[in-house]
Amino acid sequence: MNREEALELIRTRRSTRAYSQKPVENELLEQILEAGRYAPSGGNSQTTHFIVIENREVLSKLAELAAQEFSKMEVTPGMYRSMANSINRSKAGGYVFHYNAPVLILTANQADYSNNIADCSCALENMMIMANALDLGTCWINQLKWLNENEIITEYLRELGLEENEKVYASLAVGYPQAELNRTPLMRTGNKVTRIL
Amino acid sequence: MNREEALELIRTRRSTRAYSQKPVENELLEQILEAGRYAPSGGNSQTTHFIVIENREVLSKLAELAAQEFSKMEVTPGMYRSMANSINRSKAGGYVFHYNAPVLILTANQADYSNNIADCSCALENMMIMANALDLGTCWINQLKWLNENEIITEYLRELGLEENEKVYASLAVGYPQAELNRTPLMRTGNKVTRIL
Repeated sequence: MNREEALELIRTRRSTRAYSQKPVENELLEQILEAGRYAPSGGNSQTTHFIVIENREVLSKLAELAAQEFSKMEVTPGMYRSMANSINRSKAGGYVFHYNAPVLILTANQADYSNNIADCSCALENMMIMANALDLGTCWINQLKWLNENEIITEYLRELGLEENEKVYASLAVGYPQAELNRTPLMRTGNKVTRIL
Repeated sequence: MNREEALELIRTRRSTRAYSQKPVENELLEQILEAGRYAPSGGNSQTTHFIVIENREVLSKLAELAAQEFSKMEVTPGMYRSMANSINRSKAGGYVFHYNAPVLILTANQADYSNNIADCSCALENMMIMANALDLGTCWINQLKWLNENEIITEYLRELGLEENEKVYASLAVGYPQAELNRTPLMRTGNKVTRIL
């Protein structure tokens, strides 16, 4: 494969936060899931569980429950900014955590497995890159991770197939962007590199 | 970019555990690091710190210190298998945790930042994919994460540039493989997919 194209595919992955309601073709979604499943896992455990929600009623119900549960929480000093936003917007009403994307892919893993977050994260990165190759937009969603100790959310996710001992560690919104897909690489000013030669 | 090539690049990434001592060309290493730096980060924080070790004496010293510290630890019931292996092999003597790869890239992040593991993991996945495009082998290295509370290791990493409040969450061995690069996709039997249509 062309090396420059590989780097470009990685560099041009951007977050999409406004989605068209056009459904994602099944063939493309299958390719995204295959990319996710081929992420590495600690000791080749392959315990990442992909729960793929395309049903609009389920997505709405999940968004409502999340807003309901966030609105019961309080913003505390030093809280992660996006989490504070989720709480504040839920209290204000009408908060939809997945940007109304037509597809939401939850990645769950064993709660007692030390590589759970790492494995789910690698799966998400692969899926984001593959979606970019397919002209689809994605956005990393942390909200269900923040609620992964919440009983009401957990109970609903169990109905959807979340297994005993599994928790959601990362989720991915997927869909066609409302406007043209933004592929302008965002400048890196952080992410320092120290070389020891 | 060609969609099939993108999926193939992702599917053919495999772990390499035996490295040639041939140095990695600087231009290629820069491309791998760029791929890592272009991984997404929570709230676009860009706090992942890449510490790239190519100096053989530093690599040897780090491997010696890690073996020394692992050999002081005890294997406990239910311990993550690879970690138990690191301890047992360190006690046996001659353990080199980074498979003697000529390059080791440490990804560190802020200890009090809730997306630290996730961000480092996305950076590693990007670097693994990019290395595959460059015909280089890689292997995820967890050992320095397991030792990231260890004072002796931390003190040495501080000399190398690890900053206050930073911890290593994932590392990557990089180099040319001793034999031909294995690109046969490893069958996925786990990584279950549940569709909610």
